[in-house]
Amino acid sequence: MNQEVSELMKDFVESEPEAIAEKVDEMVTGNEAEDIALFLESLPLEQRQEFWGNISPEDRLDILLVMRGDPREALIDSMDLDQLDAIFKDLNSEKLVELADSMPPRLVERAFNALDQQQQKYFEGAQQYDTKAAGHWVDHNVLLLPPNAKVRDALRLLRRNTPDYSDLIYLVSRSGHLTGAVEVKEVMRALDHSYVADLVDKEIEPILGTDDAIKAAQKVQVSRLAALPVVNESNLFLGRMNIYSACEIVNEDYEAKLMARAGLDEDVDLFAPILKSTKSRMIWLGINLLTAFLASWFIGLFEATLQEVVALAVLMPVVASMGGIAGSQTLTLIIRGLALGQVTKANFWALLKKELGVGALNGIVWAIVIGITAYFWFDSYMIGGVICCAILINISAAALSGVFVPVVLDKMKLDPALSGSVILTTVTDIVGFVAFLGLGTIFLL
Amino acid sequence: MNQEVSELMKDFVESEPEAIAEKVDEMVTGNEAEDIALFLESLPLEQRQEFWGNISPEDRLDILLVMRGDPREALIDSMDLDQLDAIFKDLNSEKLVELADSMPPRLVERAFNALDQQQQKYFEGAQQYDTKAAGHWVDHNVLLLPPNAKVRDALRLLRRNTPDYSDLIYLVSRSGHLTGAVEVKEVMRALDHSYVADLVDKEIEPILGTDDAIKAAQKVQVSRLAALPVVNESNLFLGRMNIYSACEIVNEDYEAKLMARAGLDEDVDLFAPILKSTKSRMIWLGINLLTAFLASWFIGLFEATLQEVVALAVLMPVVASMGGIAGSQTLTLIIRGLALGQVTKANFWALLKKELGVGALNGIVWAIVIGITAYFWFDSYMIGGVICCAILINISAAALSGVFVPVVLDKMKLDPALSGSVILTTVTDIVGFVAFLGLGTIFLL
Repeated sequence: MNQEVSELMKDFVESEPEAIAEKVDEMVTGNEAEDIALFLESLPLEQRQEFWGNISPEDRLDILLVMRGDPREALIDSMDLDQLDAIFKDLNSEKLVELADSMPPRLVERAFNALDQQQQKYFEGAQQYDTKAAGHWVDHNVLLLPPNAKVRDALRLLRRNTPDYSDLIYLVSRSGHLTGAVEVKEVMRALDHSYVADLVDKEIEPILGTDDAIKAAQKVQVSRLAALPVVNESNLFLGRMNIYSACEIVNEDYEAKLMARAGLDEDVDLFAPILKSTKSRMIWLGINLLTAFLASWFIGLFEATLQEVVALAVLMPVVASMGGIAGSQTLTLIIRGLALGQVTKANFWALLKKELGVGALNGIVWAIVIGITAYFWFDSYMIGGVICCAILINISAAALSGVFVPVVLDKMKLDPALSGSVILTTVTDIVGFVAFLGLGTIFLL
Repeated sequence: MNQEVSELMKDFVESEPEAIAEKVDEMVTGNEAEDIALFLESLPLEQRQEFWGNISPEDRLDILLVMRGDPREALIDSMDLDQLDAIFKDLNSEKLVELADSMPPRLVERAFNALDQQQQKYFEGAQQYDTKAAGHWVDHNVLLLPPNAKVRDALRLLRRNTPDYSDLIYLVSRSGHLTGAVEVKEVMRALDHSYVADLVDKEIEPILGTDDAIKAAQKVQVSRLAALPVVNESNLFLGRMNIYSACEIVNEDYEAKLMARAGLDEDVDLFAPILKSTKSRMIWLGINLLTAFLASWFIGLFEATLQEVVALAVLMPVVASMGGIAGSQTLTLIIRGLALGQVTKANFWALLKKELGVGALNGIVWAIVIGITAYFWFDSYMIGGVICCAILINISAAALSGVFVPVVLDKMKLDPALSGSVILTTVTDIVGFVAFLGLGTIFLL
């Protein structure tokens, strides 16, 4: 556990009420907004509210901007209009875009009205793109010059207040079209009276506003630049995607994938109200219940066999578990491959062959181990033989569905990270139970 | 699937042997190293080798640098010393640090000897830190000035060839100590004859070489700077961590977490040789087999009951599945909280209380649903009642272990992302089976 946060928290929790305001002040001035946000998220709701109440209005916006969705929404909900207005007055388009998802439409409208005209225009521009598109996450704090600018104009521009992540100057025509981007470091080395346009880096490919935001963000991360230009389909300059946003987008995507395995959302609050948490998790449990009942129904087909050979009931979890684990190994590999664009029609069959090979080999090894164990346990050749075959069948089936399930889901535009493992374990459970109990019925009755 | 890569691959696979060299050339010049690396990783081994053989020695290093561990290792293994030397001649310290993990010690030494003296010194410096420490990932391409430099010196420096991500100039004394960092944009605005030291940004806190690399990388990502300085414990300047490395480190950590769930490594190759894949997955299957046998052993204690009431055998997967799913929801939330430093002694009990609350509530709802379903299915009040109680017990136990298992593992310095879910499902399987079959023995016999 993080010692520092733990002590901060203890310190805060144990403070006398009159000392709390002071503590909060101290903590807010001594830490980055990201740390305060993490700390707030880790407080139980009541204390979080108390802490929040003691943060001055000027500091609140920065903290809200870096919080996760659900806890942020809860804090916004808890504020009255005066408090919100105090936050809204420091907004710009990008910040409102970031917050808008956590606010009801009427508040977004109120915040929008607090923006100046230019920022309103930017915000409307961002809203024309879906949150999954790069154009939604555009940053307008850019260094701009007309295409005919000279290096001395660029230097003059650089002597003004330049925004963060400014390693590029964008050349934008009167009509708003992007004619090129120039690295600031090249400008520094050039002669005063030369044209900036001559320094344009032709290798900088602009992102399209309609591009997938995650793919665009990955592009920014490996560009060795701190931001990339974003244009619309007619090459109108929309702004840039900076690496700060790029990291936020990529990290959120990873978090979403990690949480999706358990049917959770990446925005979920560590201390969400019990009722809310219960509801949000209920659906996932329900879906899994359906698949469990399905597996049970298949087992039910073999009631007579189970009654005769109770050892089969005892060994059922072994068959199901081995299939599930082997399948999820293949599934995990394929899901990553799909996410990286590495699983395609051209290599699908080679991949399937390889996974089936691995499955068969691991199937044989473990089938023998389990068969021998079962033989000694129940002192029966037949039970050993039956589970041996069932394991081999199930691990091979697991490899097969570990490849097919995510690829088919992906084709159907469903996210394999979310539903892949539910479907896979349903398949391996059913195949495992039917193979095991079916073989048992044939050979043991 | 990624259409573009798919077509590239098809194109490549279907090419006549004599046209391959040309195809490869075309692809390498038209794409970023990252794209080529992804493409190479997605090729079956034989074709990958063929493709690699057609890449010119100058292009190889950049591609190797961005490949995943296992496929990279395989390619390095496949090259003879002449080919390797051709790559080694373009190495610097940072690049060798990146590659060293994929090379046997004798090759690392050979590559080291190809470095110039300065780069050898840097490399040795990096090797003094573990790969998990920030000091290992330091970049030496920095803008340096003595502490008494004037702004005009800084401007002169900026007019030379500046490295990527240079938004800071570091002030380093003759003895090698960092006295401060200055933002380039501040330098641009200052008067020629003023001192750079007067512009030092006091808020820039250097990273310590011994700091955890992942935490340091996260700090760089939210710093709104393109790099942060790294120093040792006596404030000697080691270099900087730039945001490119920071993204690599953070993304690799996320990938490792995603793969760990299935007992896989993030370096794993999509087309690893079958034998290698089988071996690497075997251990994970073995561990899970042990836990499955343990669950079976507990079921075996109730053989007599199962023989009498075969409905219990049929319903077993439902009990196990609901516990496993509910537990993994809590587990996933807590693992994320631990990774973010949000789960501490100070909020542990509040968290446990909340998760138990959610567990109890979801337990009650689903216990009733499942109880009623089982009643209708087997036409028995008693079976309905028994499974109802077992589900309630198991979902509550799942919440409990979903909180305790990761926290205890973390205390023991074990990674809950790797082993958490195995231990958790073992607990929920056993609790579920014992509760269900135990209650069945009491009430149904």
